[in-house]
Formats: sequence, structure tokens, C-alpha cells
Amino acid sequence: MVTDLETAMQTFIEVFHKYAKRAKGSTHHLDQDNLKRLMKAELGNYFQRPGDPKIVKDVMTTVVKGNKQEMNFWEFILLMTSLAFTCNRKYEQKLNAAMER
Amino acid sequence: MVTDLETAMQTFIEVFHKYAKRAKGSTHHLDQDNLKRLMKAELGNYFQRPGDPKIVKDVMTTVVKGNKQEMNFWEFILLMTSLAFTCNRKYEQKLNAAMER
Repeated sequence: MVTDLETAMQTFIEVFHKYAKRAKGSTHHLDQDNLKRLMKAELGNYFQRPGDPKIVKDVMTTVVKGNKQEMNFWEFILLMTSLAFTCNRKYEQKLNAAMER
Repeated sequence: MVTDLETAMQTFIEVFHKYAKRAKGSTHHLDQDNLKRLMKAELGNYFQRPGDPKIVKDVMTTVVKGNKQEMNFWEFILLMTSLAFTCNRKYEQKLNAAMER
């Protein structure tokens, strides 16, 4: 049986490859257009303006090293990690407030 | 509407807090026993012997900095990231092989 946590990891992989394409070499990447499509369709609740080219460019520049303008899976999952970390901080604050009541 | 990717991130948070407890300060941690319970129940398809104390100790020592023997959410999500990265590498190899056929 596959657990919810294992399904969640599989979802990261499947969503990335739904938008990524094989670039130079054998690894797969999201270019700026595909990252924009992914953010608009899959992360609409995490970004106020997920289709805004400025926001997409900011995300790409923050996550991707150098000037390559392509996001590989490792960089994509680091972006997801940062988003989950931010959400968890809020979640723990709520849990702590409830415990102290 | 919540997307599959957003649900996946929420799953990471919920599964962590199903096993973690509030330790010193205000952050939440998994101790060795709780990490073992989580690995056994939630990651049985990723580890050959998820309940083996040696494996649990190895995971804790690899992921957690210093000698604190407690895993916070950031360290937990880095563990998940490493597992997903390994799975993705295999997935990309399969994709590339299929493309070259």
C-alpha cells in the first residue's frame, strides 16, 4: 500500500515532469514559460499573482543558481521546501497558541 | 480549489505533526521513537527495514545537525527532498530511455 506521504513525493515528481522538458544533457528543466504555466495552474493558492512575469522571474532568480534561467528538479523541490517551511511556521504558531489556551 | 501539488505540501506538514511533539521552545520535533513510528507507518516503501533501530539512527544522524537526536520540520523536509530526488533520478533515467527508443 502506498501511503499519503509517499503519494505526496510522487506528486512532486509527476507535476514537475508535466511541465518540464528535456534540455541539454539528460536532465529535465522548467524554462521561464513552463514555470509560469506550472505556478499558474498548480500554485494559485500560494502566490497572489502566480502568472505575473515579474513574480515568475523573481522565483526563477531566487531559486536557480547563476544565470541559466532553467529550473531542474532539485531546484524545484527546494522551492517547494521553502513554501512548505513557511506554511509550517504558521501552522506551528497556531498549534502553540491552541496549546497555551 | 486546492491542487494536487498544494495538497502534497499540506501532507508533509500534517504527517510530520501526527508524530512530532513540542519540545524545548516553540518548535516541534520528532525524537528517535517518533521518527521510527513515522518511518514504519509512512515510508515502508522507501526503506527496506523502516523499523530497524540502526536504520532510524542512521537517518537521524545523517539529517540532524550536531548531536541533538531530534528532527525539526526543516530537517524532516530535507529528508523527504533527498528521497524524492533519488526517486526522480530513476524516473528521469526511465523517461530518457523511453525517448531514445
